[in-house]
Amino acid sequence: MAEEERRSRRRGSRRDTTSARRGFHQLPKRHVENRFPPIEVLSADELQAIQEASLTILEEIGMDFLHPEAIDYLKKAGAAAEPGTQRVRFDRALVLDLVSKAPARFTFHARNPENHLEIGGRSIVFGSVGSAPNVSDLDGGRRVGNYKDYLNLIRLCQSLNIIHLVSGYPVEPVDLDPSTRHLDAVAACVTLTDKCFHGYALGRGRMLDAIEIARIARGADQSRLEREPSLFTIVNTSSPLRLDGPMIEGLIEMALRNQIVAITPFTLSGAMAPATIAGALAQQNAEALAGIALVQAVRPGAPVIYGGFTSNVDMKSGAPAFGTPEYVRAAFAGGQLARLNGLPYRSSNVNASNVVDAQAAYESQMSIWGAVMGHVNLMMHAAGWMEGGLTASFEKLILDAEMLQGMAEVLQPLDVSPEALGLDAIREVGPGGHYFGAAHTLERYETAFYSPFLSDWRNFESWSEGGAQDATRRANQIYKDLLESYEQPPLDPAIAEELESFVERRKREGGIEAA
Amino acid sequence: MAEEERRSRRRGSRRDTTSARRGFHQLPKRHVENRFPPIEVLSADELQAIQEASLTILEEIGMDFLHPEAIDYLKKAGAAAEPGTQRVRFDRALVLDLVSKAPARFTFHARNPENHLEIGGRSIVFGSVGSAPNVSDLDGGRRVGNYKDYLNLIRLCQSLNIIHLVSGYPVEPVDLDPSTRHLDAVAACVTLTDKCFHGYALGRGRMLDAIEIARIARGADQSRLEREPSLFTIVNTSSPLRLDGPMIEGLIEMALRNQIVAITPFTLSGAMAPATIAGALAQQNAEALAGIALVQAVRPGAPVIYGGFTSNVDMKSGAPAFGTPEYVRAAFAGGQLARLNGLPYRSSNVNASNVVDAQAAYESQMSIWGAVMGHVNLMMHAAGWMEGGLTASFEKLILDAEMLQGMAEVLQPLDVSPEALGLDAIREVGPGGHYFGAAHTLERYETAFYSPFLSDWRNFESWSEGGAQDATRRANQIYKDLLESYEQPPLDPAIAEELESFVERRKREGGIEAA
Repeated sequence: MAEEERRSRRRGSRRDTTSARRGFHQLPKRHVENRFPPIEVLSADELQAIQEASLTILEEIGMDFLHPEAIDYLKKAGAAAEPGTQRVRFDRALVLDLVSKAPARFTFHARNPENHLEIGGRSIVFGSVGSAPNVSDLDGGRRVGNYKDYLNLIRLCQSLNIIHLVSGYPVEPVDLDPSTRHLDAVAACVTLTDKCFHGYALGRGRMLDAIEIARIARGADQSRLEREPSLFTIVNTSSPLRLDGPMIEGLIEMALRNQIVAITPFTLSGAMAPATIAGALAQQNAEALAGIALVQAVRPGAPVIYGGFTSNVDMKSGAPAFGTPEYVRAAFAGGQLARLNGLPYRSSNVNASNVVDAQAAYESQMSIWGAVMGHVNLMMHAAGWMEGGLTASFEKLILDAEMLQGMAEVLQPLDVSPEALGLDAIREVGPGGHYFGAAHTLERYETAFYSPFLSDWRNFESWSEGGAQDATRRANQIYKDLLESYEQPPLDPAIAEELESFVERRKREGGIEAA
Repeated sequence: MAEEERRSRRRGSRRDTTSARRGFHQLPKRHVENRFPPIEVLSADELQAIQEASLTILEEIGMDFLHPEAIDYLKKAGAAAEPGTQRVRFDRALVLDLVSKAPARFTFHARNPENHLEIGGRSIVFGSVGSAPNVSDLDGGRRVGNYKDYLNLIRLCQSLNIIHLVSGYPVEPVDLDPSTRHLDAVAACVTLTDKCFHGYALGRGRMLDAIEIARIARGADQSRLEREPSLFTIVNTSSPLRLDGPMIEGLIEMALRNQIVAITPFTLSGAMAPATIAGALAQQNAEALAGIALVQAVRPGAPVIYGGFTSNVDMKSGAPAFGTPEYVRAAFAGGQLARLNGLPYRSSNVNASNVVDAQAAYESQMSIWGAVMGHVNLMMHAAGWMEGGLTASFEKLILDAEMLQGMAEVLQPLDVSPEALGLDAIREVGPGGHYFGAAHTLERYETAFYSPFLSDWRNFESWSEGGAQDATRRANQIYKDLLESYEQPPLDPAIAEELESFVERRKREGGIEAA
């Protein structure tokens, strides 16, 4: 015992932990919420200054809505459409009035009720990477998005409890015909997962198909679907101050049916927004509030999410930078703006690294802390994003899942009960003793601490003998193990059949003609 | 312009940035402070419960002080020494009274006044890794600590503005004779840097030598040295509830001369502390307060720092785990305890990875955020730590410096002035425009955003053509460039001579006989 005590006293004994590799372990499905106060980078006055600036932008400059239906709705709601243009201006009071109709929180329904999500308040949900044109893993390297990889990424989203929803196509399955791609892609979310999912607002047709797939998946009629939001879409403005036609069509169809629209400006400071974070935030706030006002004009009370995607560019090259100090503070501030306007908040886990290395990890960590401490409600791209969004990585998805689990645990309270304080154990062990064999330790050691699936804590010798694998290499093996043990969730055969028929019919009809 | 606009609209143009590699750039020397409120994981009641539990520990169980001089000081101060043992117990009122004599903040003086450090309040200082037995870089791999690498790590500490002090031997120069090692090692901090530094509390002799070196370095007489703390030491308790003889000797000599003592328990939950974070914190608090009480008993008002080093072990293997959710919450809570007791707070940047990979980065990021948002005043091991402290890595030092810079920038306020809000720019550019050429952008783009030295934001093609180097490989080149451009700081020749004479004399005397 003396030898062990001496070794453990130094820094803890470091025996091999190869047994940890057998069998993937993860946190159970669990509601995640941030019980800490948000970090507020803006003072109350600064927050108001940004809000006022954005209302001035909408009042004086206005925004272009590249679709007559949007202009109609906005005119009917009291906005000022400039004849012969696509420009709409809003009295500040009108904006605030419309935005005030949006709910501060709501439930996002999945086909499996265990996977319903609360959006708003202190609740946090993590979504998979979305919209990457390329996909990557260590074995195959970087390749163009394809359906096989797409399906595997979807399967991983299902298998990982910390990923709460599929928040886009993890990778664009470019080998599928553009006219009908959305049918297979969205249907796969229903067959391979029983979690909440997303449909792209790429025009009316695709949006309606996605909504129908969501309705079928939930075994709901139209009226229940409207009572129970079951699909979300990201509507990006074309910063600065524009909303394009296809996005508008998607927004309208979702709003009409009370489905969730997350309005997200893409305000890269120095490129599509002023070269200051305050200016980018003012513009972001204007665009988000205008988009949300449009949703409310279509259907008052329709569920929306306030999206922030403010970062800076590298001014030397124009390359977008992510996970930067600017990004973090913009994430904090975006949360303040969302809360000021009574809206749930969307932020993201992003980085600009080309390889799943320390840079990918630290930029992602910065993004995660920025979002979480900004009280994010929907974290987009929470798992899998690389290269500023150009590539979805299998290994990064695993790395992110590990980091998200760690963050979820940080948000848990500490047990400070008398049992936890352990005075009896401290008395029993006494000065100079050790706790390995204490009753207090034995009672709780198996579940005492968070157990990561990716971190390797073996000593250098054991780790070297075990192949000297870095985290990315280990993540590679983990994703493969997960795919091997993937279990397709059960699906009511009637729903499966209706879904299949729908997809087949729409394909026969040619899907969306102008892709 | 249209082509460029289209490309830049998509995601920002991603031109090669090889010019960024010419010439290392870093943030200027700057005071760092956390202007945000701390994250408080413990409620007021929970905080009190831990405090009360620790006072009960000291009152009822007590602590062993393995040196008669400590027991003498404590008896004189009113503590209850148990005859025939090394056990001392403290009335809770006595502990609180003694601790209350410690200053809440103080200045730590360097030989270059530009490098004086404020300890306490909202101020944060970052120290280098300390005490690693091994050192590593990509070229030479992992090797036993040696003087050549030691000196190079010291040089890097000098060259990096974000590293505020040398907070230990970055690596133990094991090839130097143990009897005289400390003389060369501490003297190197004076000749190769002009920053604050540390001396190990390994017995009276070494401590006195380090204090003398600090006095010489500052060109001060004894009385000015005492008015101007110019050296710090870490005194680790031997958790649980013991303080060993050599540490006590060091503590006493430092306290007598009003030099800084950072009392740091080493409370690994499940090993040297109860298998609960609350229990580990109660024990940490007891040991830290007892050590600080001893310092105050030696010399009331002597500057001290409350140290926390609470983490968990991997219960499967006994291996210490770092940067875990437990570590983060313990870092938050340690800050609350330090502030409750009116003391500056020490935490650390730590990880348990064996290689400078994504795990090293995310565990370190977790540690950094935990410490900073816990309102750390002294962050030990802020740069260079690997493998749970067993290895100092050159690449990790660079990686950490980058991450610390990023955090320092996050703590800066946003400019929300009218100029920053940029309404004129937003008017000028208008819906659908872009900001690359706007006056507002051109006026500020060169300094608008934080410019990292380690992150690579080139597009995948350019990055691949440039050698596909990951962050660790780039860090390797950066450290070499820094060493090549290292400039030894000027040193008053009279001081240099006195230092050399002192070291020579002590070596002739044989240094410390029993090493």
